[in-house]
Amino acid sequence: MTSLTPKFPHLLHGGDYNPDQWLDRPDILEQDIALMKEAHINCVSLAIFAWAKLEPQEGVYQLDWLEEIIQNLYENGIYTVLATPSGAKPRWMSEKYPEIRRVNAAGQRELSGGRHNHCYTSPVYREKVRAINTVLAQRFAKHPGVILWHLSNEYGGECRCELCQAAFREWLKKKYGSLEALNKQWWTDFWSQTFNSWEEIHAPAPRNAWGNAEPVHGLSLDWKRFVTDQVADFIRAERDAVKAADPSVPVTANLMEDYYFYNYFKFKDVLDVVSWDAYPQWKGTEEDVDTAVSFALWHDVMRSLKKQPFLLMESVPSATNWAPVSRLKRPGMHLAASMQAVAHGSDSVQYFQLRKSRGASEKFHGAVIDHCGHSDTREFRDVEQVGRRLRQLDEAVCGSEVKPDVALVFDMENRWAVENAAGPRNCGIHYAEDVRAHYRALWRMGVPVDIVDEECEIKGYKLVIAPMLYLLRAGFAQKLAEFVKEGGTLIGTYHTGIVNENDLCHLGGWPGEGLGEVFGVWHEATDGLYDGEGNCILLDGKSYPVSELCALIHARGAQVLGTYGQDFYQGEPALTVNAYGTGKAYYLAARAGADFYRDFYRGLTEELGCKRALPADPPEGVEACLREKDGEKYVFLQNFSGEAQSVPLPEGCVDMASGQPISVAELAAYDGMAIQRSEG
Amino acid sequence: MTSLTPKFPHLLHGGDYNPDQWLDRPDILEQDIALMKEAHINCVSLAIFAWAKLEPQEGVYQLDWLEEIIQNLYENGIYTVLATPSGAKPRWMSEKYPEIRRVNAAGQRELSGGRHNHCYTSPVYREKVRAINTVLAQRFAKHPGVILWHLSNEYGGECRCELCQAAFREWLKKKYGSLEALNKQWWTDFWSQTFNSWEEIHAPAPRNAWGNAEPVHGLSLDWKRFVTDQVADFIRAERDAVKAADPSVPVTANLMEDYYFYNYFKFKDVLDVVSWDAYPQWKGTEEDVDTAVSFALWHDVMRSLKKQPFLLMESVPSATNWAPVSRLKRPGMHLAASMQAVAHGSDSVQYFQLRKSRGASEKFHGAVIDHCGHSDTREFRDVEQVGRRLRQLDEAVCGSEVKPDVALVFDMENRWAVENAAGPRNCGIHYAEDVRAHYRALWRMGVPVDIVDEECEIKGYKLVIAPMLYLLRAGFAQKLAEFVKEGGTLIGTYHTGIVNENDLCHLGGWPGEGLGEVFGVWHEATDGLYDGEGNCILLDGKSYPVSELCALIHARGAQVLGTYGQDFYQGEPALTVNAYGTGKAYYLAARAGADFYRDFYRGLTEELGCKRALPADPPEGVEACLREKDGEKYVFLQNFSGEAQSVPLPEGCVDMASGQPISVAELAAYDGMAIQRSEG
Amino acid sequence: MTSLTPKFPHLLHGGDYNPDQWLDRPDILEQDIALMKEAHINCVSLAIFAWAKLEPQEGVYQLDWLEEIIQNLYENGIYTVLATPSGAKPRWMSEKYPEIRRVNAAGQRELSGGRHNHCYTSPVYREKVRAINTVLAQRFAKHPGVILWHLSNEYGGECRCELCQAAFREWLKKKYGSLEALNKQWWTDFWSQTFNSWEEIHAPAPRNAWGNAEPVHGLSLDWKRFVTDQVADFIRAERDAVKAADPSVPVTANLMEDYYFYNYFKFKDVLDVVSWDAYPQWKGTEEDVDTAVSFALWHDVMRSLKKQPFLLMESVPSATNWAPVSRLKRPGMHLAASMQAVAHGSDSVQYFQLRKSRGASEKFHGAVIDHCGHSDTREFRDVEQVGRRLRQLDEAVCGSEVKPDVALVFDMENRWAVENAAGPRNCGIHYAEDVRAHYRALWRMGVPVDIVDEECEIKGYKLVIAPMLYLLRAGFAQKLAEFVKEGGTLIGTYHTGIVNENDLCHLGGWPGEGLGEVFGVWHEATDGLYDGEGNCILLDGKSYPVSELCALIHARGAQVLGTYGQDFYQGEPALTVNAYGTGKAYYLAARAGADFYRDFYRGLTEELGCKRALPADPPEGVEACLREKDGEKYVFLQNFSGEAQSVPLPEGCVDMASGQPISVAELAAYDGMAIQRSEG
Repeated sequence: MTSLTPKFPHLLHGGDYNPDQWLDRPDILEQDIALMKEAHINCVSLAIFAWAKLEPQEGVYQLDWLEEIIQNLYENGIYTVLATPSGAKPRWMSEKYPEIRRVNAAGQRELSGGRHNHCYTSPVYREKVRAINTVLAQRFAKHPGVILWHLSNEYGGECRCELCQAAFREWLKKKYGSLEALNKQWWTDFWSQTFNSWEEIHAPAPRNAWGNAEPVHGLSLDWKRFVTDQVADFIRAERDAVKAADPSVPVTANLMEDYYFYNYFKFKDVLDVVSWDAYPQWKGTEEDVDTAVSFALWHDVMRSLKKQPFLLMESVPSATNWAPVSRLKRPGMHLAASMQAVAHGSDSVQYFQLRKSRGASEKFHGAVIDHCGHSDTREFRDVEQVGRRLRQLDEAVCGSEVKPDVALVFDMENRWAVENAAGPRNCGIHYAEDVRAHYRALWRMGVPVDIVDEECEIKGYKLVIAPMLYLLRAGFAQKLAEFVKEGGTLIGTYHTGIVNENDLCHLGGWPGEGLGEVFGVWHEATDGLYDGEGNCILLDGKSYPVSELCALIHARGAQVLGTYGQDFYQGEPALTVNAYGTGKAYYLAARAGADFYRDFYRGLTEELGCKRALPADPPEGVEACLREKDGEKYVFLQNFSGEAQSVPLPEGCVDMASGQPISVAELAAYDGMAIQRSEG
Repeated sequence: MTSLTPKFPHLLHGGDYNPDQWLDRPDILEQDIALMKEAHINCVSLAIFAWAKLEPQEGVYQLDWLEEIIQNLYENGIYTVLATPSGAKPRWMSEKYPEIRRVNAAGQRELSGGRHNHCYTSPVYREKVRAINTVLAQRFAKHPGVILWHLSNEYGGECRCELCQAAFREWLKKKYGSLEALNKQWWTDFWSQTFNSWEEIHAPAPRNAWGNAEPVHGLSLDWKRFVTDQVADFIRAERDAVKAADPSVPVTANLMEDYYFYNYFKFKDVLDVVSWDAYPQWKGTEEDVDTAVSFALWHDVMRSLKKQPFLLMESVPSATNWAPVSRLKRPGMHLAASMQAVAHGSDSVQYFQLRKSRGASEKFHGAVIDHCGHSDTREFRDVEQVGRRLRQLDEAVCGSEVKPDVALVFDMENRWAVENAAGPRNCGIHYAEDVRAHYRALWRMGVPVDIVDEECEIKGYKLVIAPMLYLLRAGFAQKLAEFVKEGGTLIGTYHTGIVNENDLCHLGGWPGEGLGEVFGVWHEATDGLYDGEGNCILLDGKSYPVSELCALIHARGAQVLGTYGQDFYQGEPALTVNAYGTGKAYYLAARAGADFYRDFYRGLTEELGCKRALPADPPEGVEACLREKDGEKYVFLQNFSGEAQSVPLPEGCVDMASGQPISVAELAAYDGMAIQRSEG
Repeated sequence: MTSLTPKFPHLLHGGDYNPDQWLDRPDILEQDIALMKEAHINCVSLAIFAWAKLEPQEGVYQLDWLEEIIQNLYENGIYTVLATPSGAKPRWMSEKYPEIRRVNAAGQRELSGGRHNHCYTSPVYREKVRAINTVLAQRFAKHPGVILWHLSNEYGGECRCELCQAAFREWLKKKYGSLEALNKQWWTDFWSQTFNSWEEIHAPAPRNAWGNAEPVHGLSLDWKRFVTDQVADFIRAERDAVKAADPSVPVTANLMEDYYFYNYFKFKDVLDVVSWDAYPQWKGTEEDVDTAVSFALWHDVMRSLKKQPFLLMESVPSATNWAPVSRLKRPGMHLAASMQAVAHGSDSVQYFQLRKSRGASEKFHGAVIDHCGHSDTREFRDVEQVGRRLRQLDEAVCGSEVKPDVALVFDMENRWAVENAAGPRNCGIHYAEDVRAHYRALWRMGVPVDIVDEECEIKGYKLVIAPMLYLLRAGFAQKLAEFVKEGGTLIGTYHTGIVNENDLCHLGGWPGEGLGEVFGVWHEATDGLYDGEGNCILLDGKSYPVSELCALIHARGAQVLGTYGQDFYQGEPALTVNAYGTGKAYYLAARAGADFYRDFYRGLTEELGCKRALPADPPEGVEACLREKDGEKYVFLQNFSGEAQSVPLPEGCVDMASGQPISVAELAAYDGMAIQRSEG
């Protein structure tokens, strides 16, 4: 593949830089350049929150200061990721044009101030953004130092103003064509909820004294889809404005972890490059392994969106300041966490923030350059070490890919629907947690995984894992059936194939849309368990605990592999496998724990011969990842275990830091190592 | 007594049926009839949420579909409880007439949507309801299949719109006559709260930054009373509309458990039949016995409202979907829980819902007919079993009564007042819990109990238990004094006789209004205990733990039976008895636990010879209830203990299922048995 | 010093009296006088909530009833503290003039009702208050029985109406002069928060869907300062109105414990006398010692505000009714708690309330006279005992002072800033708790302490303790440096000298403003610890646990006394001392526990020879306090330990109750004793 940033085809190291806060301190701006160079920084993100400085009064643009900064950085070998400033609207604008401020779920227009809180529909705001973006692009798109557009910042949230609601109604008209069709899909005969006119439709809102839940689930689900589409449309408008000046400069938007508001898969075609902001909260305890798993998964999500390398756009050298507690990183952790991103496909390590803000709410957020103003600090030394490492890896790793045999379905629309459902566990249905539990078993073995949603292609994988596929979007059941028929292996679970894409139940037996035949089971009912309650699956002479959700199923052709060990459904099927075409479909009836997933996926990936980073599992708490380029393999080891670990390597390995052959990787606590692996 | 439903004088079995959601699926409607017959269903509730189908546009009524359904059911031997549809207003109506939507406590008009959220005062809504009710009644009241009116659904909540507030002011004028009287009773000289005009009076509301509590307690209390009266007036208007067409069809309204908003005793004269919706959350654990006690009490409340049999209008065959966890019922539990209702006086077992809704928020709520559409499911088989049992009992049990010797005072106005008071325990004054603790001791022994409030007649009982009678409504202290004077036995406790009916303290020594003489004590002060703290009562050589509230009392004529065992009031009186007239009045100074209540009530009921279901206590966790008709006694045993139990029976018992004589009832876990007991 | 109340120069005993609630009961008013005399009551507070009685209609004043009460009390030897009635506005006023009602943080105008909820800016309210105050003063200021003005009641809270916001903008203009200066200090270039006009500035408010926090911390901080200043201005207006009639009658306002809304140090020059309302929640458990420490500290705050005796204006004889649980006071506790106030400098013991209110929200709040109406109650006898004790002490103690060698910095503006900061511990930065932890070590030894803020004079103390001095107001760093330079001993800690008075970080190394030189350290970073995590300080062979916050510091001239025992900063400095001028500055890098503070302050106060009540520590749980007058010393001992305790006394002690010499003070549980100590 070509580089994500053709003007500067290298691994990036740097981060958000806010010289607009220090324009009256040229001494500090000068010192910044010197310190960046000392830390091997080659790239900064500029102007993210600078709108008030770029357009201090309506229509009056002041860009000279920015040009001077960009040019000066460029002359010092530092490239610019240039932001559009829409993430924070100036106060003069939000005071003059109240419509650009959001209306919250309680129906109140928000006050001015804060950030990330503009309406995505407002024509006024869209025009103001278009104008500033155009001015910026005309001035800077062709600058040799500007390598990437950073559209806005951390797009997020939703607005319920009348403009948004009107757009929602148009969106619904386009989707359903008629109110009759909408009423049918939303099942509005229930509780006399029938809509007689489009104007009767409002965004779901907690303004009912009987509790917050909107009873018409299809409405809630479509609202979330609309919000994603509306934001995508906003991003597209931002993109078009900057591309007009020079279409060759790629665009990105920095996404966020575990982001419930939007379906990021809908953004993939709008952006040239996916980037994101990763803020793991390392604690120096055993929990750090859980944290590493969570962030491994999110790195994989970001890579999978476009199936190409991504950028780590923000991270923190020491500690954030917004968590309940600002725990300092333990020695080594900054390197390990930074290399984890690269290992999963990032072509950068970027920070928020380069120089620490002096006032307001982020003045204690970790930064490369602290208030003391010099480089003799732990965080600065940690950053410098990462900079050196990236230089060593640059040529080999930049642009390399990850190509797994395993796809894991993590579908945001399914998540919205299953989490919004009433029953069978309102105190926590834990879809994302269960996806992560499956993921963790593969992570533990160093088996690379792609993340897909129901609209993605699944051909070519050996194994597709689809936990709790409650909602089936049109065509996905068929796609799964074909995948198995043609020899693929599919893992499904309890609570699968329950509703159609509008949250309307399948009639005639679950799983619906033909998946009953693929799995060879009928799912009669689901027993919800309280926290602390459990059951178990008896399988191969072992007993595996299960919890939270136990489906009562009947084999209709499938072979029963495991049965329940307790309660009134003791002896009933709990794990089945069905031969379908030339493939196999497993059905797991209950929510299992780490022990089950570990044993089950070890056997299965061995049987299927799934690709892995190393022939054997790495030690507990150590992650092994694999990137590939031009036939070369790069294995990344990160040690999150809190203790030193030895990892035996196959023949033909070279330590990329030293360039020397290596047979055992010796990792200190919180260490990271990159290895070139010729064969094995 | 005559039957609750003269057109069909039988035990009812069936439930809520929503064919209005399936009118485009005649195949499903046909299948429904077949399945109902298979499950011995003889009665459905119709049209509860069908307003949008009955009046799709303003003033355009479409009733043919409903007539067809009713007729078809009737021809198949299935009777109809016909609902008025006011529980859910159509969206066209709430959009056109915002006044019918409630204003919540924060002063916001609610959005359209949801259910049970109409204003009870709005003239527009009252007129719309009158019109549709009239149309329905004119068409269906004389239909031979329509046996009962089901007014609205689960009346609930409150509205604070200006219409309601104006009605509240009228209510106050009527009650107090003058502002001077109101100011006096509400003690408004406190904090300069004096009202100079009626317009200055507003509903209590949490719009004060200093916290939610309305300091004028009399205002809060009267608001709750007004809300009950206003809802009763609304129900009356609904009743009059349907009775106009045919006064012979009785009316009911389905009430709810532990319903804090309204004083249900005020509804008893508005309704011909009391019915209610019981949703115990069975867990398959020891907690199930607590659940059984709670629902036993609520069944008794419903029976006591009119002192006649009631109807179980809704229950769930398997699991609800709105609890934190949807735990499936254990085998047998559906029978046991259904028979518990009958045992306490229900002449029906009805369900929500017959066919499971396909979409929206109740699509996973248990139903007789599941999405799979056939009868080969656990829940269907459980329902069928109950249907069979009801047929066996029908002739003997239908219309039989419960006639206890014991009355337990559970007064909603007292509850409102004592829970709203500031002090002596704001973290939980636990009135309802304490009432239930007294109740449980009698339940444990199989002693039937009536529930009364301060307006009920108490003559004729042997024992009246009145826990924490904080608020004395006019005349009740005199009623209690007469009851004791004429030979009755009265149990009173700490925190009794504190305020008059408007929450104004009695001066001159507690308990007030002459109860100090009845009990022979002066109550000086109350010590509030934190959770986890305790004291004890020393009595007959035993030490009984007490908690939460310990009154410091002085005997003024009473005999001291027990004393405190700890703290600075060690040795002071904790339990006294006073001879008054030919009766006795016990005063319990502290909140006791199960041990005390068990021993105390065992002795007392033996001494008084109170009626009981069986001569001896049933095993722990087994409930023994008694219904009577035409001189015959019917004993109902329900086993909630989770284990098989044997219950020895007196001579002359017959198992009503088999018709065979029986000397020991052998109950499986979660089993229920009905026994005809001639004598013993 | 002269007496606080020159017209009646004695220790006061009495409290809030509300005859306005009983004007139709002359029998009760007569009985009240008799009971007050029985309880040695010499002073009542009148008319606090009587506005509706004083001005029943707009402009119609009715004062005769009040004059009759005052005169009658006076003739019976009972003096009056006369309140202005602004604490509770009459309903007719708040209905007619909505502007006098507050607007809350959600932007809603509050409803009428409640108390302490008027706008402090409203010209209408100010005028109404001025008018009634003037009328009251003209009628009563010269009455011989009226000894003190009680301005309003428990001033509290804040209002965000447009009038207040306009006043805030004026306040800002005055403070900053220009928007440029304001933008600079508030660091508004951050997130494009720049203000282009004064009208763009709004009070901080949680109307942003992204959470409650206002990101511009300088704005939040200035808002709090403005609120304090605006309330002070309101108090000044009240004072001027009553002083106009007779400037010789002193004014007070009853303040409250741990009051976060206002900086009480700003009120000291507005008031002649400081008074406050103390409501410790005694539980009869070990927690009572913690409670005693907290209230000791708050008594000391109140005395320190004006460095003169204060008045205990409200307390409760038995139990309040607004706490989660109303636990009755154990025998003796009323005496001990009352004498604690006197011991720390109070010249009164006053109660809320004299006669218990009959209705509304305070009807169960403890009172001298209960609803039963006689004196044969525990609380009455307790009050009578205190009355007797005060008479014994009156001549010697009234007007005596407390003169410590130790000053503890407890600065409200620092507290606002550090608690509002994001990082390093958002789950609890615990400034006030840490101040109390230092205080407790001194309390334990009977070492008197003054409380100061950053604007107070610190010359003349031997020891100044300044925990977590995050924010440095202009000049305080210089004041501290001079204090040390001239021989003083200073204790500073982690997180000191971080920001200037507008919450803008010091650049160039912490602690800022020259304190780095005073302490001889550089503070590089702060490690936040989760609850349950810890580290320790190794010092003199002992290991002292620390928690929550651990600063990583470097000695820059200071001597390292103690080092960290764990984690990656094991062995790094944790406690240092620096010689600076002729004094010493200690720097404690982590939040220590009681053990450390005890050992550290024991050594230090011995070394410095700080004044103490007794030569040796009193027993655990016993407090020893010292007042002085005319060369005489009065030692007060209060036993909060729950057990009897013996306290050895030095030579020359006399028990002030008996007048007899005493060598060992024998204290029952919850006992209090006053001792005259000639020397020793």
